[in-house]
Amino acid sequence: MLGKYLEAVREKNPLIHNITNYVTVNDCANILLACGASPIMSDDCGEVEEITSICDGLNINIGTLNKDTIPAMFLAGKKANELGHTVILDPVGAGASAIRTETAKKLLDEVKFSVIRGNISEIKTLVLGAGATKGVDADVADAMTEDTLDNVIAFAQAFSQKTGAVIAITGAIDIVANGEQAFVIRNGHPMMARITGSGCMLTAMTAAFITANPENIFEATAAAVCAMGLCGEKAFVTMERNHAGNSSFRNYLIDEVFKLTSKEHDVGAKYKFV
Amino acid sequence: MLGKYLEAVREKNPLIHNITNYVTVNDCANILLACGASPIMSDDCGEVEEITSICDGLNINIGTLNKDTIPAMFLAGKKANELGHTVILDPVGAGASAIRTETAKKLLDEVKFSVIRGNISEIKTLVLGAGATKGVDADVADAMTEDTLDNVIAFAQAFSQKTGAVIAITGAIDIVANGEQAFVIRNGHPMMARITGSGCMLTAMTAAFITANPENIFEATAAAVCAMGLCGEKAFVTMERNHAGNSSFRNYLIDEVFKLTSKEHDVGAKYKFV
Amino acid sequence: MLGKYLEAVREKNPLIHNITNYVTVNDCANILLACGASPIMSDDCGEVEEITSICDGLNINIGTLNKDTIPAMFLAGKKANELGHTVILDPVGAGASAIRTETAKKLLDEVKFSVIRGNISEIKTLVLGAGATKGVDADVADAMTEDTLDNVIAFAQAFSQKTGAVIAITGAIDIVANGEQAFVIRNGHPMMARITGSGCMLTAMTAAFITANPENIFEATAAAVCAMGLCGEKAFVTMERNHAGNSSFRNYLIDEVFKLTSKEHDVGAKYKFV
Repeated sequence: MLGKYLEAVREKNPLIHNITNYVTVNDCANILLACGASPIMSDDCGEVEEITSICDGLNINIGTLNKDTIPAMFLAGKKANELGHTVILDPVGAGASAIRTETAKKLLDEVKFSVIRGNISEIKTLVLGAGATKGVDADVADAMTEDTLDNVIAFAQAFSQKTGAVIAITGAIDIVANGEQAFVIRNGHPMMARITGSGCMLTAMTAAFITANPENIFEATAAAVCAMGLCGEKAFVTMERNHAGNSSFRNYLIDEVFKLTSKEHDVGAKYKFV
Repeated sequence: MLGKYLEAVREKNPLIHNITNYVTVNDCANILLACGASPIMSDDCGEVEEITSICDGLNINIGTLNKDTIPAMFLAGKKANELGHTVILDPVGAGASAIRTETAKKLLDEVKFSVIRGNISEIKTLVLGAGATKGVDADVADAMTEDTLDNVIAFAQAFSQKTGAVIAITGAIDIVANGEQAFVIRNGHPMMARITGSGCMLTAMTAAFITANPENIFEATAAAVCAMGLCGEKAFVTMERNHAGNSSFRNYLIDEVFKLTSKEHDVGAKYKFV
Repeated sequence: MLGKYLEAVREKNPLIHNITNYVTVNDCANILLACGASPIMSDDCGEVEEITSICDGLNINIGTLNKDTIPAMFLAGKKANELGHTVILDPVGAGASAIRTETAKKLLDEVKFSVIRGNISEIKTLVLGAGATKGVDADVADAMTEDTLDNVIAFAQAFSQKTGAVIAITGAIDIVANGEQAFVIRNGHPMMARITGSGCMLTAMTAAFITANPENIFEATAAAVCAMGLCGEKAFVTMERNHAGNSSFRNYLIDEVFKLTSKEHDVGAKYKFV
């Protein structure tokens, strides 16, 4: 019964500061509005501390990091920590370049994150160091299967213990773990991998969920992951009905978040608590 | 009967130079194309003067300003003034950080604007100095109501007298004021606040309207504001019919601008001239 | 029978590194996914060589070039050459500013391109030097017509001989030329000029086609141009049926690429080989 966490986003309308990439930034803003939050995007060192101060939560996404935005991530992250705001990290493409891997790792050292969300390759890079990552998508060799599920859960829990953050590893199956427990989530649809931004949008929406529900970040993260997957399932139905393709699917996905009720969330979320 | 101003955009196909944020830039480009104008986006100091010289009008939007784009705004603004081009300012998030407030104010000092368009909180910040602005959305305390309408009109007119610019303050009710007169516009739909970019898109489209109608910037601005609101109303009907959400609404909104005729504008515009 | 080149994109799933503009970047990512490729966007000098090394092809688009991304284009281009990757150039707005013209020309001097794709005004600027270009759209004076077709083909072939690249000049009629031969392609729809990004998306998709088909870059480029035009025709039918406008057209266009089969490509491609 995780629908109440969506309800809280709608009631509290948290303002989320996003330092994010220019590829999916518009989708992140619209999905934040869809779920009941408000977005502000800002990545200039001259203002990020002020901007994060008037916000309720911070989303750091390294998708198109550069020499100007990297220091802004640290400034905003530290200020958000100082103010007790929720902070989430999306280590997009960690492992694909030294600067991505090192920035993500240094962020982990200097900023306390409430949640870290990535695909399995990105999270493995953060824990084990750089391997061969296929760009911004999970490496096939890393793919999560039923067989490797228990290993991935243990791995996520260990990383949670080390960082103090809730760890969300998303893919065909999604894992949300804290140090002792985990949700295994089976919502979602393969179409979500055929658009850009499924991951970025989920991270942004998770920022909204945890910021509106700071008393239970673990469950709120699981609620966001279920919501995204459930909306992906619904969006695929609309796409098929309209004989559409991936660009329309992206719109339908955000539309479904806009329309999702807490009751539908309660009914449609497919998770196991382990 | 403001539909003729839309007609002129379609006839003259003005080329608009946009220095704008990376969140809503694609929507701004597409709405400019939808109304009959052509967009060019450019924000590097090395070229903005040249780019603005081959254009007909300039749109400055500070939504994701940074240390590199701020000087570009001044260079382009001054060059556009020199050439007698129309110039519009969207002071996104003025009041949310010192750099936004100061940049907007300094732009007002050094560049002559044809039109300034913002929400009530942003415009108040420009006039009265920084207060508490909730990010990029209007502060609830500032909300324009029937009771405060006369005050807001007087306020907008005073700001117009001071700056020489037409002032457009948009929200649930929209005000377009010059130094002596004002349009009170009641088109629009609350859904427009549930997508990112309604304001940015309106500013971009207003740039097109005033550039195609330099002989009557005041009425052309009112025409653009009515057009946007009217298209929001129409887009909401389509959204309801299609059981869609905010992401599709954004597409429908731009689609409606694409389809809007001057006759529909004449019939649908809801304004009072005071 | 060029459909097989699309088939190869779907089989090989090439990873394309894009240094591109922030206006149409999301559309470029989604069209790459639609045709069966994977996108990664990265433009920081600190990582572009590494990023391009894990990719299969490189797309350089100068649409919103700036002082930080220009050197990244050279670094990535040279590294991609070193590795024998396919590299494509989209000289957006060449002729509109000195920095665009000079950057494009210097890229031609220092990087070997597999394909150069632009509108007639941009390509003329690269060959003949800066004239008067109307922003990022082709100048009316340059418009390709039946009368000028033979001249444009000869011009493209000469440019191909000089650069060693396949030249794609797109507009109402599209030309794809190597040093001796040319495709004249008559797919497409005028609606494609009423959205932002038709050109950028085509260049990105061409990067995918040539990277999956390095053994025949000339035909693969023609296949990509036919695919884009054919999908534009189909998208227009959907737009009309849905009484939609340009924003939805953009989605339908990408959707059609997602749905396009090699058989439909074989049937729908309208080209003449000269």
